[in-house]
Amino acid sequence: MSHSIEITRTTSHKTKPAVDRLGFGIHFTDHMFIMDYEAGKGWYSPRIVPYQPISMDPAAKVFHYGQTVFEGLKAYRTNDEKILLFRPQSNFKRLNRSNVRLSIPAVDADLALEALQQLVAIDRDWIPAEEGTSLYIRPFIIATQAALGVAPSTKYQFIIIMSPVGAYYAEGVHPVKIFVESDYVRAVKGGTGDAKTAGNYAAGLKAQEEAAEKGYSQVLWLDGVHKKYIEEVGSMNVFFKINGTVVTPALNGSILEGITRHSMLQLLAHWNIPVEERTLSIQEIYDAQRDGTLEEAFGTGTAAVISPIGELNWKGEKLVIGDGGTGQLSQKLYDTLTGIQTGAVADPFGWTIEVRQ
Amino acid sequence: MSHSIEITRTTSHKTKPAVDRLGFGIHFTDHMFIMDYEAGKGWYSPRIVPYQPISMDPAAKVFHYGQTVFEGLKAYRTNDEKILLFRPQSNFKRLNRSNVRLSIPAVDADLALEALQQLVAIDRDWIPAEEGTSLYIRPFIIATQAALGVAPSTKYQFIIIMSPVGAYYAEGVHPVKIFVESDYVRAVKGGTGDAKTAGNYAAGLKAQEEAAEKGYSQVLWLDGVHKKYIEEVGSMNVFFKINGTVVTPALNGSILEGITRHSMLQLLAHWNIPVEERTLSIQEIYDAQRDGTLEEAFGTGTAAVISPIGELNWKGEKLVIGDGGTGQLSQKLYDTLTGIQTGAVADPFGWTIEVRQ
Ligand SMILES: Cc1ncc(COP(=O)(O)O)c(C=O)c1O
Ligand SMILES: Cc1ncc(COP(=O)(O)O)c(C=O)c1O
Repeated sequence: MSHSIEITRTTSHKTKPAVDRLGFGIHFTDHMFIMDYEAGKGWYSPRIVPYQPISMDPAAKVFHYGQTVFEGLKAYRTNDEKILLFRPQSNFKRLNRSNVRLSIPAVDADLALEALQQLVAIDRDWIPAEEGTSLYIRPFIIATQAALGVAPSTKYQFIIIMSPVGAYYAEGVHPVKIFVESDYVRAVKGGTGDAKTAGNYAAGLKAQEEAAEKGYSQVLWLDGVHKKYIEEVGSMNVFFKINGTVVTPALNGSILEGITRHSMLQLLAHWNIPVEERTLSIQEIYDAQRDGTLEEAFGTGTAAVISPIGELNWKGEKLVIGDGGTGQLSQKLYDTLTGIQTGAVADPFGWTIEVRQ
Repeated sequence: MSHSIEITRTTSHKTKPAVDRLGFGIHFTDHMFIMDYEAGKGWYSPRIVPYQPISMDPAAKVFHYGQTVFEGLKAYRTNDEKILLFRPQSNFKRLNRSNVRLSIPAVDADLALEALQQLVAIDRDWIPAEEGTSLYIRPFIIATQAALGVAPSTKYQFIIIMSPVGAYYAEGVHPVKIFVESDYVRAVKGGTGDAKTAGNYAAGLKAQEEAAEKGYSQVLWLDGVHKKYIEEVGSMNVFFKINGTVVTPALNGSILEGITRHSMLQLLAHWNIPVEERTLSIQEIYDAQRDGTLEEAFGTGTAAVISPIGELNWKGEKLVIGDGGTGQLSQKLYDTLTGIQTGAVADPFGWTIEVRQ
């Protein structure tokens, strides 16, 4: 099980930012993990080194052809000073599924988890303790071969960086306003939408910018074929509670299989709340809102866990959801999941892993 | 007109590769151009420096969210030792169109052209003279802000690198076999298909790999909505000659507006050959091949100029085009365009620009 990860410790620890100024993904810890790949040689030289710039040939394929995948997960500090990772194996499994789509060689998920544990342990002092805070972890792979032919790279780097992040909801969970996007498309079946890869996010920047100008915090993506069916919201999966049943778009090849989504589905099943994973049109949501059966709506993802939706704007029609506040079920899911993640609530699912310190 | 581009010359010139071992985009010249961008400050510090690795924060947005655009064009050495650039202004115009889609700040096209001219002049000895060879030029922009929030970067680098490239057709133009892709999708209307950005190419790697395993050199992309209409072939636009008329897919928002495509359209108009830019289904091509009216097919792009298509494989049906060889019109277009590019044929369109040496 020892994968002999070489460790070089920093000699100059960075100053940690004040907890109220953490933000998201702007401060990074003292160390990072790197491992190299070369065709014929495989992945080699796993190592933990001081957080530092990487040297890239300007012809590196990642810059030109976007051959890259990433993951996002969190470590939490419990009240009794344990450190918990939330479902990290699921992230490395998904990373390898993304790798298949992007023609990137698989990484050894056990080695990746071992590296992550060692890295988190080394930088454990960076995990903030305040409610709602956590350590955001970003594993990613980039194509580094310096060659402009459009073909998979022969060289890669697998890197893990970590960032202490502030409370997403400084003043308690609160709902956001979402713009239903009818022009721009994030992904389409046959494309890369179900992989966690850079191009999907690049495609969404412009729509998000335009939505923000209109006062909306994210966009709700519709399918690229009919512009009718609901896909995701921003970088989150999306759920609707209609007449007592929770409905979320089925995995269809163009949306990401969120780990928070999966956890929500398990929690709902555990609570015997009826759930449907299926095709869901924006018209159905419109109708449900009009006839008063649309009770709640929320996005799910690692960053915010749950983001309740207070208002949808579809082609200028503003749909207020419930009373525009945070729904009861949304709040309960949020409290339960964050409780499990931070060790405050029992974890009957075996989702959390304690980091050896 | 002087944009005060700072120049630092290399002190150790690299050995130039033998002309028969040039390949495509694997050897790079002695110098590169770089310019930085920061929000509030704009583009600054345009400079030519020795070709060298760049230092990137591992959290740089380009790695995670693919915020990047690029261009591709060529410089040619004429028989009388002039250096010609082919339609470089069109490339910088397209770069700025791509920038709009990717929420990247525009670059000054005049400055970019000036930088390119100076860079080519400095590395002029790298431009090979042999027939079919050229200097491939790759301008690109990458998002460099170290921040994991999904939002446009506040920092960028604009870089130009150059690579001497070998003859695409060592033994004369010859046709390729193309696989019509019915599962994977490159781009869809509302996405980024009409921008020259990394994610489009990442999306295509897997399909290309699978086509290669079946013995096909590229894929022909169909539209992502109906999987019926022809879009592009590999990284080229595509043309068909049916019953004397040349047909190419109209610009529809999901295909790239190729500069070679545009040049072909101008040449064909100049020769009074009937041309149609319109929606074109794969069924129509199938029918034309079956009834004997499909005379020629070819891809167009900067790398190969023209790539005649000898065979299409659509769902297992093999369609041989013409006699499977290079069509007469394909050859004439190739000869004329490469003639203009290399100064061997008069340029009535004002396409070429001579580089001051
Ligand atoms: C596009 C997209 N959808 C959904 C999600 C939610 O996935 P997860 O719950 O695994 O964080 C993410 C990532 O956060 C995402 O980037
Ligand atoms: C996707 C794609 N289509 C078409 C082309 C052809 O464009 P151009 O003729 O400007 O090289 C390219 C670039 O070469 C391309 O990348």
